[in-house]
Amino acid sequence: MKRCTLFLIVLIQCCTVFAQSTQTLTVRSYRSQHNKAVTEEFVNFLSIPNVASDTGNIQKNAAFVMQMMQKRGIANVQLLSPGQAGAPPAVYGEAMVIGARQTLIFYAHYDGQPVNPAQWKYGPFTPVLLTARMDEGGMYIPFPGSNEYDSSWRIYARGASDDKGGVIAILDAYEAIVKTGLQPKYNIKFFFEGEEEAGSTNLGEILQKYTSLLQSDLWIICDGPVHQSGKKQITFGVRGDAHLDLTVYGPKRPLHSGHYGNWAPNPALMLAKLLAGMKDENGRVTIKGFYDDVQPLSAAEKKALLEVPPADAQMEEELGIQGSEMKGKNLTAAINLPSLNINGMQSANIGKMASNVIPATASAVLDLRLVPGNDWQRQQQKVIAYIKQKGYTVIDHDPADDERKQYGRLIKIVAGDDGYNAQRTSMDLPIAQNVIRAVQSTTAEKVVLQPTMGGSLPLYVIEKYLHAKTITVSIANHDNNQHAENENIRMLNLWNGIETMAALMMMQ
Amino acid sequence: MKRCTLFLIVLIQCCTVFAQSTQTLTVRSYRSQHNKAVTEEFVNFLSIPNVASDTGNIQKNAAFVMQMMQKRGIANVQLLSPGQAGAPPAVYGEAMVIGARQTLIFYAHYDGQPVNPAQWKYGPFTPVLLTARMDEGGMYIPFPGSNEYDSSWRIYARGASDDKGGVIAILDAYEAIVKTGLQPKYNIKFFFEGEEEAGSTNLGEILQKYTSLLQSDLWIICDGPVHQSGKKQITFGVRGDAHLDLTVYGPKRPLHSGHYGNWAPNPALMLAKLLAGMKDENGRVTIKGFYDDVQPLSAAEKKALLEVPPADAQMEEELGIQGSEMKGKNLTAAINLPSLNINGMQSANIGKMASNVIPATASAVLDLRLVPGNDWQRQQQKVIAYIKQKGYTVIDHDPADDERKQYGRLIKIVAGDDGYNAQRTSMDLPIAQNVIRAVQSTTAEKVVLQPTMGGSLPLYVIEKYLHAKTITVSIANHDNNQHAENENIRMLNLWNGIETMAALMMMQ
Repeated sequence: MKRCTLFLIVLIQCCTVFAQSTQTLTVRSYRSQHNKAVTEEFVNFLSIPNVASDTGNIQKNAAFVMQMMQKRGIANVQLLSPGQAGAPPAVYGEAMVIGARQTLIFYAHYDGQPVNPAQWKYGPFTPVLLTARMDEGGMYIPFPGSNEYDSSWRIYARGASDDKGGVIAILDAYEAIVKTGLQPKYNIKFFFEGEEEAGSTNLGEILQKYTSLLQSDLWIICDGPVHQSGKKQITFGVRGDAHLDLTVYGPKRPLHSGHYGNWAPNPALMLAKLLAGMKDENGRVTIKGFYDDVQPLSAAEKKALLEVPPADAQMEEELGIQGSEMKGKNLTAAINLPSLNINGMQSANIGKMASNVIPATASAVLDLRLVPGNDWQRQQQKVIAYIKQKGYTVIDHDPADDERKQYGRLIKIVAGDDGYNAQRTSMDLPIAQNVIRAVQSTTAEKVVLQPTMGGSLPLYVIEKYLHAKTITVSIANHDNNQHAENENIRMLNLWNGIETMAALMMMQ
Repeated sequence: MKRCTLFLIVLIQCCTVFAQSTQTLTVRSYRSQHNKAVTEEFVNFLSIPNVASDTGNIQKNAAFVMQMMQKRGIANVQLLSPGQAGAPPAVYGEAMVIGARQTLIFYAHYDGQPVNPAQWKYGPFTPVLLTARMDEGGMYIPFPGSNEYDSSWRIYARGASDDKGGVIAILDAYEAIVKTGLQPKYNIKFFFEGEEEAGSTNLGEILQKYTSLLQSDLWIICDGPVHQSGKKQITFGVRGDAHLDLTVYGPKRPLHSGHYGNWAPNPALMLAKLLAGMKDENGRVTIKGFYDDVQPLSAAEKKALLEVPPADAQMEEELGIQGSEMKGKNLTAAINLPSLNINGMQSANIGKMASNVIPATASAVLDLRLVPGNDWQRQQQKVIAYIKQKGYTVIDHDPADDERKQYGRLIKIVAGDDGYNAQRTSMDLPIAQNVIRAVQSTTAEKVVLQPTMGGSLPLYVIEKYLHAKTITVSIANHDNNQHAENENIRMLNLWNGIETMAALMMMQ
């Protein structure tokens, strides 16, 4: 009898704190009866190549998004285009609620990272279904002709999780709400961007051009992965981002390494020396002033960080790595500091295509992540100053003969103009607390609250031009290969994502 | 009158020392009447892809070489095949001379370096004719239907100069001799190898298998470029060569650089640090014992080096570089020391294909050139010892999960088994002096004598298995893009090469 009472008390506590709401179960029921339709539409969407520079296909994607919105009865569907010809448009729509006093904008982006098809097991734009993760024995199966889907299956394609999955979760959440007769309390607006992965170059212009249309109390950003533990996650800020493309020069043409080895400078070695010097053995960037502008975390943010479930051991196991690159910093601490990362590096050829040459050039792409306090252009300049200090003359073009004659060490630096700063929203705002309660109502596990995500989104422009707050609610599995080959989304994450978005649309 | 006498004296001295022989003019006359035929056959030969691992095409090349030899009446033409199935055969033939007491073997190789077709302006196996060097305004023109060829034109294709050009020069020299009724004093044998660019793995076996067939007094190796000054060049040795393929490992899959940047180790940075440490700021290899085994140059070799026309200033101008990588060493001195060169380096992608990832791997290919005294495997081991000393655990396969857990820094090293040692023949041998006189008889400019070439050829196996001497007589233009994309030969170099080979066949 006593044990039974104890069990009941535990059960009640459990239910009180982390019960799944009736709404969530209603949405789940609707979705589970439409698995086939949801997936078919998603697959058709993923089949349209979506690299932001591929203008023709980006237009096809935008048209597809419009058509999905219109099919669901969303009003005022339209393209929001910037002035630059061929720049990807955002897709807008709205569902105004009688009597609603506040407005939420749901954001996702339909473009994806560039692809190297040779590195994909299946084509990046040929969506396939696997029974599990590709490198954990996942087997190819055809898409079922029924609603019988296993939640551990995964769809592989560019954009599956980053971020066409976000578009689908938002639209299918709205569909489930409408079709099951649920009544939102907020006006709902939809904003689907088309060049997030290309640095959202035109986002600021679009926001300025459509300021009145885009008025809202909060932007809910559906992008990025949930916590590595699998728990749902709300993120109140993003890192900023900036790029540098570096090319160093050796001889004007590739040389026979026998006839000229030891004598002609090798650009691969020059680049290696330059990059190697940028970080010390403890993983700290050695560039002067690199950490100087960092704005310290608030007390509330520090407290939230302490409550984030530690993921280091799990991720080390999963990724087959040892320890942190930045000695003494765990994963959560590391992403709250600015970073310098080599995205890619190349000089001549390796493997079977290698030949005995002194290469003519060597290139690397650097990615600088920023935290509040950093300015993206200032951060680029710190790296450029370091390179100059190493004796390089910086140019923005391939060197002419007279430049080669005049300067010993030449480097072409293309400082990407697609950078942006970090952004952070206070967790203490009433609307932020509403978001936390809504997401928590969909899951029996405690939702993880992160002051910032590791990833970057141009959220500062929303604050800058619309004076609106942003909160990011992610849905993808953390092991989604986002930005790399074989990107994927697990069915359970898509299903959960639909429930999460629906709860946010219904929040009090 | 006095001035006239002085002029005559100068003229006589000139003629005495550096006259072109009648033989040379005879060969030239024959060749100039056959430019069209020579070129057509060469183009057909260059059109057959010749990467040593491409078994089917290598066989086609070998058959083409046999057919060219038979057409010229060369006797006993046959393939010399090693035991390994599919390994490229050498092609042999002979022209025995009644009364000859000595035998020369003429060597060239018909295989070429691997190609990356994307890097070629025209296809590597689609020979084209340009009016000058591609990067100096050379224009595409169709091959003429007559014998009217300009000596500054160039043929572009893999193998044009390295070393199908050598095969053609030898065979057309022989044809000119026979057709113009000249009488060689030596027996002439022909040996055309098919896997020189793949490290001549089976050459030793072929030499052992056909020892009696291959008896000779001297091998004349027709490979490599003439001196950068354009002067003809005889080389008495070659550098050895050995390779190492390195791959370092980061996370098991490419990671989003935002979510994991600063935390997950970046293999591109790890590789950069490893490579950067291998040479100091003066271009000297820092690896322990790297220069220890070097056998000092003899007095005669040191003297010959002093007489080599300095090419540094010309090459710096031509290649758009400043100074020597190895501070204080000119080009001639640099190639007389062992070298360590990065042939290629890659991690993830650069340029438009770059994405915001922490790459999963980073790779480099190293090329070690050797001089007499070095042992190729010992040289590889010195580099491997250095890498171990930097805290890496060396494996010969992609790491398994338990290896990733056990070791912090893992590197896969494939120590190429295609290495070989350097070789040098004394300039003082009577037959070496004959070679010098023969080549000098074809040109009005002083022939350059080099103790060693920068390039590598597996000549030590000839010494080892046949106890034969070797001397290298090169014909290609120095700016031939050998081993790289857009390889080419200048018509003048091919024409001069035919004359040089003919003079050697006729030497006293």
